[in-house]
Amino acid sequence: MLIDGLQCGDFRRDIFEQLRDGGFTCVTNTLEFWGGAIDSLDAIGKWLDLERANSDIMTIVRSVADIKQADANGKVGILMGFQNSGMFQGRIRFPELFAQLGVRVVQLTYNIQNDVGGSCYEPSDSGLTRFGREIIGEMNTYGMMVDCSHVGERTTLDAIEVSQKPVAVTHANAASLKPHPRNKSDKVLQALAANGGVMGLAIYRNITPEAACDTVDGWAEMMARTVDIAGIDHVGVGTDAGHYVGTPELDWMRQGLWTRSEQYGAGSKVVATMPPPPSWLSDISKMGLLHDALTRRGFSAEEVHKLTAGNWLRVYESNFG
Amino acid sequence: MLIDGLQCGDFRRDIFEQLRDGGFTCVTNTLEFWGGAIDSLDAIGKWLDLERANSDIMTIVRSVADIKQADANGKVGILMGFQNSGMFQGRIRFPELFAQLGVRVVQLTYNIQNDVGGSCYEPSDSGLTRFGREIIGEMNTYGMMVDCSHVGERTTLDAIEVSQKPVAVTHANAASLKPHPRNKSDKVLQALAANGGVMGLAIYRNITPEAACDTVDGWAEMMARTVDIAGIDHVGVGTDAGHYVGTPELDWMRQGLWTRSEQYGAGSKVVATMPPPPSWLSDISKMGLLHDALTRRGFSAEEVHKLTAGNWLRVYESNFG
Repeated sequence: MLIDGLQCGDFRRDIFEQLRDGGFTCVTNTLEFWGGAIDSLDAIGKWLDLERANSDIMTIVRSVADIKQADANGKVGILMGFQNSGMFQGRIRFPELFAQLGVRVVQLTYNIQNDVGGSCYEPSDSGLTRFGREIIGEMNTYGMMVDCSHVGERTTLDAIEVSQKPVAVTHANAASLKPHPRNKSDKVLQALAANGGVMGLAIYRNITPEAACDTVDGWAEMMARTVDIAGIDHVGVGTDAGHYVGTPELDWMRQGLWTRSEQYGAGSKVVATMPPPPSWLSDISKMGLLHDALTRRGFSAEEVHKLTAGNWLRVYESNFG
Repeated sequence: MLIDGLQCGDFRRDIFEQLRDGGFTCVTNTLEFWGGAIDSLDAIGKWLDLERANSDIMTIVRSVADIKQADANGKVGILMGFQNSGMFQGRIRFPELFAQLGVRVVQLTYNIQNDVGGSCYEPSDSGLTRFGREIIGEMNTYGMMVDCSHVGERTTLDAIEVSQKPVAVTHANAASLKPHPRNKSDKVLQALAANGGVMGLAIYRNITPEAACDTVDGWAEMMARTVDIAGIDHVGVGTDAGHYVGTPELDWMRQGLWTRSEQYGAGSKVVATMPPPPSWLSDISKMGLLHDALTRRGFSAEEVHKLTAGNWLRVYESNFG
């Protein structure tokens, strides 16, 4: 089994084929970065069409039982996720409705502050707002996992404290291994572990140590060092792989509708465009190399399973079993 | 059993109590007249809250099995319906999503033309549009019953022809018994019957013969004469009872956001305000008097069941069993 806590971009049929060939059991996708409720409904509708058009190789999953069924059928399971909470539009009643529509993962903020809390790029992080506390309560009740990737440190710590269910950081790395605002401090990782959560480790060059981009063994080593910080039960895979993400798509992700000025997201003026994938990961289907690399690094079969799938299954079970 | 094809207004707890005392098994409510998708999601969310607050006496039903379960539990079943199709916002993918959220009855138009077709008050009825045909296909696929109350004659006949499932006129009367643009011609009633549909008969004074407002036997007589036109399998109850509908609510129903000018809906300049209920129906809990009146009129027990519940159950089964 191989579970990826987050991917984004344009999922065409060849991507589903690569995911199947790469042995992916379940992938959380990104239905929206900037959309409100209507855009989010549009996105869900499109994914239901995409599922019908590719039903021989993929299936939308809504529960752990669905994931296991997809695995048994040799299909890639897609867990519907959002990298922002704009779909709620300030409404306490919307998590229940979007949960009914199959949404299982919602990141509290993307790159800018919203009505729920502060983002990792905000100069001052408000922490979780009163509405944010209400929304997490609803998400807990209706089986929607809280994702704190891209979320500011203070808001993340608040969310971990408030949430009655384990919280996820679906796609980031440890800041102590690669200093970057998008990455998570040891303090966050330890709080996340104490709450029972999981961080999925990324392959996105802008937030990943160079050695982890050079070889799969380097990436396995990064995973091992993150395990040293958070514990064997609290680390997973969350590649942040972006499919068919060119400059227009990257500009949209970074600028959305909030600014006319150039933005670099996790990049910088020097690294403004989409960086290449890790040298060892020419396409996503190579991700399956990770199992052997973790074994070479000295993890037992049971530990390899936890890191590549089992930890995600556990937090999924807790959130929307 | 007593099934009401349509009620509207503000359902407070005392209304649920009256419905329970009146022996109502299932009532289709009106979540919106003029709302788009967001308003409609808001309305669904509020009804889920209303259900939690009144779960001892009412329950939202989504299938015929749910209706039978509610009946067995002595609770009033509420079937979620809309008196307009604005929630779709021109989107072919939205019927599937709103069906997932439990919406089971959607009227194609309210009092004015929309992107689906023409209303009964429009000087020229366009008939069903291309989008209307697409939407009915989706409604048939995902278990949402087409309602042609308030819909223009040509659009209604088109909808009956296009729909692969029986169509409803949830709340109207026969125009040959009470001439009025809101009521349905014998031609429509016969087409509706041929398609297997049902018309629910109303108690709203503006569209109901005077004798049917005077006594329950008069109303049973109107039902018998409608059976002569449409057949015993195609007539039901659809009171159009409006709870706590005062002048502001009536103005909203009639003017919505589309006009500043005074509108009279089914009324007129002379009868501009909300007319009183039928003399025999001081409150909705008296509706149960109908069973005995139908028996006095000469209907058998089996026929009384069809007219008060069985015909609705049959079209519900066909549409969203």
